Order: sequence, then C-alpha cells, then structure tokens
Amino acid sequence: MTDGTNRQILLVEKPTGKLGPEHFKVSEAAIPEAGDGEVLLRVRYISLDAANRAWMHGATYRSAVEANSVMAGGGIAEVISSNALGFTPGDIVFGDTGWQDYAVVRGKHLTKMPKVEPMTYLLSVYGIAGLTAYFGLLNVGRPKEGETVVVSAAAGSVGSIVGQIAKLKGCHVVGIAGGADKCQWLTSELGFDAAVDYKAGPVFKQLKAAAPKGIDVYFDNVGGDILEACIAQMNLFGRISCCGAISQYDGTPSAHGPRGVPGTIVVKRLTMQGFIVMDYDEQRSQALADLQSWVGSGKLKVQEDIISGLENTPQALIGLLAGENRGKRMVKL
Amino acid sequence: MTDGTNRQILLVEKPTGKLGPEHFKVSEAAIPEAGDGEVLLRVRYISLDAANRAWMHGATYRSAVEANSVMAGGGIAEVISSNALGFTPGDIVFGDTGWQDYAVVRGKHLTKMPKVEPMTYLLSVYGIAGLTAYFGLLNVGRPKEGETVVVSAAAGSVGSIVGQIAKLKGCHVVGIAGGADKCQWLTSELGFDAAVDYKAGPVFKQLKAAAPKGIDVYFDNVGGDILEACIAQMNLFGRISCCGAISQYDGTPSAHGPRGVPGTIVVKRLTMQGFIVMDYDEQRSQALADLQSWVGSGKLKVQEDIISGLENTPQALIGLLAGENRGKRMVKL
Repeated sequence: MTDGTNRQILLVEKPTGKLGPEHFKVSEAAIPEAGDGEVLLRVRYISLDAANRAWMHGATYRSAVEANSVMAGGGIAEVISSNALGFTPGDIVFGDTGWQDYAVVRGKHLTKMPKVEPMTYLLSVYGIAGLTAYFGLLNVGRPKEGETVVVSAAAGSVGSIVGQIAKLKGCHVVGIAGGADKCQWLTSELGFDAAVDYKAGPVFKQLKAAAPKGIDVYFDNVGGDILEACIAQMNLFGRISCCGAISQYDGTPSAHGPRGVPGTIVVKRLTMQGFIVMDYDEQRSQALADLQSWVGSGKLKVQEDIISGLENTPQALIGLLAGENRGKRMVKL
Repeated sequence: MTDGTNRQILLVEKPTGKLGPEHFKVSEAAIPEAGDGEVLLRVRYISLDAANRAWMHGATYRSAVEANSVMAGGGIAEVISSNALGFTPGDIVFGDTGWQDYAVVRGKHLTKMPKVEPMTYLLSVYGIAGLTAYFGLLNVGRPKEGETVVVSAAAGSVGSIVGQIAKLKGCHVVGIAGGADKCQWLTSELGFDAAVDYKAGPVFKQLKAAAPKGIDVYFDNVGGDILEACIAQMNLFGRISCCGAISQYDGTPSAHGPRGVPGTIVVKRLTMQGFIVMDYDEQRSQALADLQSWVGSGKLKVQEDIISGLENTPQALIGLLAGENRGKRMVKL
C-alpha cells in the first residue's frame, strides 16, 4: 500500500467536434493496489499520439475510450510493487498506463523495457514511434535504393524517423509538413532532399516539383487531401503505407475518401496497405538492433518534445493535433 | 493484296457523359496491306470489356482512344498474310485489332493462340477474362480455405469465373450482381453460396446477411458505393483486389473516393492492390493449365454472350456498361 493520492486526467465527455480542454478534468483518487497478476506502476512519461484522439471516435484496433474514465494512453513507468510473475520493483515497463501518476496494470499487458539513457528514447526512437516508422517503411513500403519516398506529418515522431531511414536506404526523400520552420529543419537538420509546406499552398504542385520522378513509396500519416494528391502522383507499382489519418481525427470524420480510389489504384497497380506496429512483434528485436546501431553511429537523429506536468497532458494532445510538436511529444511526470 | 472493303466502327466523338450510339459510326475503307514486320488479320471475334469505356477518359495502362479513329478493342483473328516472323496464314492470334473486319498489326503486338474448340474460349475463360479472374483472385486476393470471398459484377465475364475459382478453393462465396435473375443464376448454376442484388436495396445490409463472418477477400470490379460497403465489412488483414471500377466509367468520374480510406485500411490492416492481367504474363501457362483442367472436369462453367455483326458492336458495349450481359460478351464477325 502506498500512501498519497493519485492524480488522474479524466475524459469527461467525448468530443463531437474539435478536442478542447473542456473535455478533460483533473481528479484525485487513492493510489490503487495491485491484485493478483497485477503490477502497481509509477508513471514516468506519458506518450502523446494522434491515435489518442482516434480512440475517442469508437473502437479501432483497441476498444474506444469512454467518457468519465481515466484517459487512455501509453506510458513508460517504474514498477513499485508486483503480484505478477516476471516483474520486480524498479523494473521499467511500457504499457497503457493512462493519464495518471499511478496505475495498476495486468502483467501480461506490460512490456519490460531495457534500461537505456535517456529513458525517453523508450517512447521515441525505441518505442512505438521508431518501430512504427521502421516496419511501416521497410516491411510495408519496401523502398528500393534510388526510389522516391514521400512522408506526411514528416516533422512528427514517426515521420521524422521514416524520412531518415529512407535516406539511409538510399532514397530520394520528400517530407510534407506544416510551416517553413519545420520544412527548413527537415532538409537542413535531418537530411531530407526536399520538403513541402502544406500551409504554403496546394500540395499537389509543390509535390510535383519536389518529387519530379513521381512517388514510389508514400508513407501516409494524414489521409484526406494530402493522400489524394499523393495517389495522383504515384508511379507504377507504387506502395502506400497507411499508418494513420491525422487529418481525419480531430473533428467530424470526412464523409468521403480520396479521389483515385480505386481508379488510379488499378491503372498504376498500386498497393495501399494498413498496418499497426503490434503486427510485427516477432521482428521487434531485429528492428531495435537496427535502430540502436543507427542512433549509435549518429545516422539517425532523435528529436523529442518533452512537456512537464500531468496537468498539461490535455493541452499537449490538443497542440499535437494542431501540429505544434516537432519529433516525439511526451509528458514527464 | 486482298480485294474488298474493310468495314470499321469509328469513335467519332469522345463521350463526356453516358456513352451512346451517336458516338460511333460505321465507315468503309480499303483492306490494308501488311508492311514490314506486320500481319494482315481477318477479325473473327471482338471482345467487349468495361475497360473499353475507360480508355475514352484518357491514358490508362494504355494510351487513350482518340476521336475519329477506329475504336480500339481486343479481338481474336486469323492471319491472312504475314510479313512478321513467326506468323503464317491460318494462325489464330489475339491482339488489339480494333472494331473492324480486317486489321494490320505489328507481329510483336500479337499473341499466337492455340487452336481450341470453341474458339470463343480464347476470349472468355482462356482469354483476358479468365486470366484476370485467376490472377486477381489467387495472386492478389490470396484466399485461404474457409475464408469469405465477395465479388462484384459477379455475373460478368470476370466475376463469374472469380466466384467459381473461389468455390474450388473452399471459400464461402458471395456475388454482387444486378437483378434477381442474375442472382438466382449465380447460386443455382454457378454454385455461389449467396448473391446480393444491388438493384433490390442497399448493398450494406444485404451483404451483412450474406457474409455474416465478414469479408476476407473482396474482388472489386465496380468501385464506388459497393466498394465502400465492402470496405466497411472487411475482416482484419483482409485483401481487396482492385480490378476495375465499372461504376465510374460511363459518365463523369466520381468527385471522391469511398469512405473508410484510409481510416478502415489502417484499423483493419487491409491491403488494397490494383493489378492488370499483363503483369502476370510469366505465370500465364500455369494459369491456363489450371483453367483448362477445371473446364475439362466440369468444375468451371463457361458462360458466353455472343452477338453477331460488326455493326452491333457499339450497342453491345453500351449494353455491357448497363449490365445486360451474363458472362463474357463478344461480337462475332
């Protein structure tokens, strides 16, 4: 039994339009106790992901989050006490801790993490972001040397890694991001060949200039109009790796899909494939070994955007959905 | 030199809306002579395909057909005279002969066909229709025994073969077609497990009843609303084989694509893949051997819809786009 209180962020109402601070409230509860097969955790870092917003629409690859419960979310946490085999106090784990100081989670739903410095890398490059980039690009997109790879939300946690891995594989890499600063950062700091600022004008024309040979692999984080513009510029036998649809999450989902489906899919013999990082659990250690070697040799730069204080988690997500982060956003408790 | 005239059907104007007889005219020309590397052909059967209409919109996997030229189209023809290596009078070939009695085609653009009885099978089950069904289902859709396969335009040349092959592979097979007669034919004659009549009401609900375990493989010939209804009912890791978009060809192409792209693609980890039969040329002989064995043993029924007279070709295509055919439609000259 641990004395003290457990601060929690509740989702008080599911948004029908744009997510705002009014959809959350801070609450306090007693620190819970671990039952049989469970582990009591002290949460250290909460991961912020566009998918958090998608969970509010309904069941996705997980059940929907419900109003008047602790907001769901992945986190890195330290084991305080354990009634589950294989976990001992001091262990560092990843799991769906929710937005709170303490969480009780079943051992079988936790992944034990290695101790790395900084610990935040467990949420960024060695976490879901890095693995999503790795599998979505290499297993789904399957770029070949010399091909053109385009990634949207390119300055985000996943996109910034996708583009860098594509460069490591010898591709011509174009990032799509919002704002001149982000675009400048992609080309000057991360080594992208070109960047398209979707806030500066229609994507279609800018993309035509940035990817003059057409697109072989498009890593889609956003859906909507940008997906439509990319479909129209895909090369024969091109691959679209469908990772997410940020543009569709915050507000009412679009009443229709992109033009070119299925016409261009047929004519250009494109493959569009959805994936989720959990599907590749078996190949996880190889992926981590590659990512570690690239980070170690300085070929892969890690960008993190760390915000302090549990109470700032709602605003951190709202801001992420508005595209204000660069690299992996998380909240330090 | 062959005496006589060559009747030809010209496309006099590219349709902007629905295709009608006014877009064609019959014309007469001299029978052409084969130049160096060319072959003079007497056309025996002209293939009618929904793709003929798509070619009028612009370049697809081939260049667009142009106004005031002989309408393009595949056909089975007999060699009359040849200046191309490997072709001798009497040979039966397949090629883009266009809609005319005689055609001169370069030898390298022709495929020599075996002599089979009836010759029409070279356009149906052993032609593009049969091979499209075979590769699109087995190489792209990759159904496993016990899975649910749904095919649209199921009473058409490709769909009717797709469904039968899926049954041969041990799948639960649902066909989507227009009209009670066609639906009845699919289940009673071709062995489909269920059929959905899209003219009898919304496809979504009917499909839910016909495919209660959800859809593992959807073979899409139509695009549009039916594709949308199928996407919504796909199972995890389902595959959509994108063969065509008949619903989009005759008239102004749709201003948008189906809902669920990319949202459902991600959540359900679907693969949508476009293909064209020519992409599988290397595996052609294996496919033909399989098709022949199934036809020979009576496991695969061949349905043809043969119309007589070159002058009836425009109406035959217009009718095909309206869905009036059952099985492979062709014109006998």
